[in-house]
Amino acid sequence: MLTPALVVDVEALEANIRTMAAALPGERLRPHVKAHKCTELARLQRDLGGHRGFTCATIREVEGMAAAGLGDDLLLANEVLDASRLGVIDARVTLAVDSQATIDAAARGGVREVLIDVDVGLPRCGCAVADAGRLADLARSRGLSVRGVMGYEGHATAVADHAARAEVVEKAMTKLLAAHADVGGDVISAGATVTYDLNTWATEIQAGSYVLMDSYFGAMTPTFRQALYLECDVISVSAKGWAVLNGGLKALGMDHGPPTLADGAGEVLVVSDEHITFMPSSPVSVGD
Amino acid sequence: MLTPALVVDVEALEANIRTMAAALPGERLRPHVKAHKCTELARLQRDLGGHRGFTCATIREVEGMAAAGLGDDLLLANEVLDASRLGVIDARVTLAVDSQATIDAAARGGVREVLIDVDVGLPRCGCAVADAGRLADLARSRGLSVRGVMGYEGHATAVADHAARAEVVEKAMTKLLAAHADVGGDVISAGATVTYDLNTWATEIQAGSYVLMDSYFGAMTPTFRQALYLECDVISVSAKGWAVLNGGLKALGMDHGPPTLADGAGEVLVVSDEHITFMPSSPVSVGD
Repeated sequence: MLTPALVVDVEALEANIRTMAAALPGERLRPHVKAHKCTELARLQRDLGGHRGFTCATIREVEGMAAAGLGDDLLLANEVLDASRLGVIDARVTLAVDSQATIDAAARGGVREVLIDVDVGLPRCGCAVADAGRLADLARSRGLSVRGVMGYEGHATAVADHAARAEVVEKAMTKLLAAHADVGGDVISAGATVTYDLNTWATEIQAGSYVLMDSYFGAMTPTFRQALYLECDVISVSAKGWAVLNGGLKALGMDHGPPTLADGAGEVLVVSDEHITFMPSSPVSVGD
Repeated sequence: MLTPALVVDVEALEANIRTMAAALPGERLRPHVKAHKCTELARLQRDLGGHRGFTCATIREVEGMAAAGLGDDLLLANEVLDASRLGVIDARVTLAVDSQATIDAAARGGVREVLIDVDVGLPRCGCAVADAGRLADLARSRGLSVRGVMGYEGHATAVADHAARAEVVEKAMTKLLAAHADVGGDVISAGATVTYDLNTWATEIQAGSYVLMDSYFGAMTPTFRQALYLECDVISVSAKGWAVLNGGLKALGMDHGPPTLADGAGEVLVVSDEHITFMPSSPVSVGD
């Protein structure tokens, strides 16, 4: 195999999809595709998991899903200033809005359905709870159909302790339900992989990481297994003890720190553009 | 402009190229293309800077440069286990080797020229100084032409203080010169943007970051200006004070930490996949 290569453990992948679908079947889950940005994986989520609605983070992701025939019910869970590309997509597209400017953009761009995005405690997008009803009225006055509310409890995903996380989720969803009482609609969209078993208030959970899992969220949700690996070759071994792999930070997400080595193969010392220097736990050779 | 958009400040870019070329004209610099992976920028480095040799980190970079007509003298400053794609490239290709296995791979793959890669203090690739002469003999016995040595003083790039960095560079280059005495050849290849003015021993400097510069190395080399920016729009403003930009870690390198905002526009609070939440230093509106 030509390395570095991104490889998927299909058995773990399918187990993750089935495990999540057993807990949150069909429409109870709206898988977030920003985690993998891959329509073939989304198709597996539909076919194995029975989920027909998906969450996207960007206009391009919506376009890609629609082009792949996965456009039954796409939510762009993000605000945009120019929705004209969304208005022409041949798919059901729902857009998050949290201000007059983003409602204007949705109407102007030809989007037909929206969710009111509510700040439930994560310092990011979302209107104040007290403002949600007014924005829903404004959206309806602009001809938009308001399907409900959305509120991402992303701050809960930083809480390692399960019980403490549950409290953060409950507090966040109390806010979202208050907003929903003013907004109306069938949809209460929220959640993440690490709150999928805690968030019993949302009508649909926007989990993404569970499919391929990672070393950060994996520690918080042992139900799901890591399914994505960067396969590398050892290209250099030093007499001083370390060895070097031919993949580095240009092939890795480094936002949660350096990668871990599979199977306890050793300890990562340095990650550079195209290399990982590590201290092997047992002797390795060039070509391993 | 559709955002997030990666934009180049052409004035700063050209100034960086001219400044470096004044210090290290023509063959004294072998620009590293791993920093930008962009043949149009490499072409500017050739046309404005007069540099005709380039450094690459991967086989694909070598292939890309050759296909763009920039193959006068390409160094793959990295070890590979399968050099067959390098052997068929229509360009002058020199490959780093640091072991019998990588010398075998070079010869087997049809590569004609190599540099002996020497460990000068960075825990990564490179043979021991005492082993360089033996490996050069081995390479020659396999029919390879040994052009000289390479030794990357990457550990010096972590030393913020200029005088202290100079000492680390000198110590590293003392090792490289000792290896070169045993290896022979015309080339002593080393260096980086933050050692370009300190490394007076190498015959050519492998600087890359100077072209577009970044917020990390920029603080160490004020001679060069940041030329690359991610242009975003404000998509949400909270009554609690923060605002949100529509670009995040999927568009940014996060290996040196979160991004900085241009022109002191505010302080970054959180970077997530497609958002930057920041505290603006003066009021902003959606659409800014």
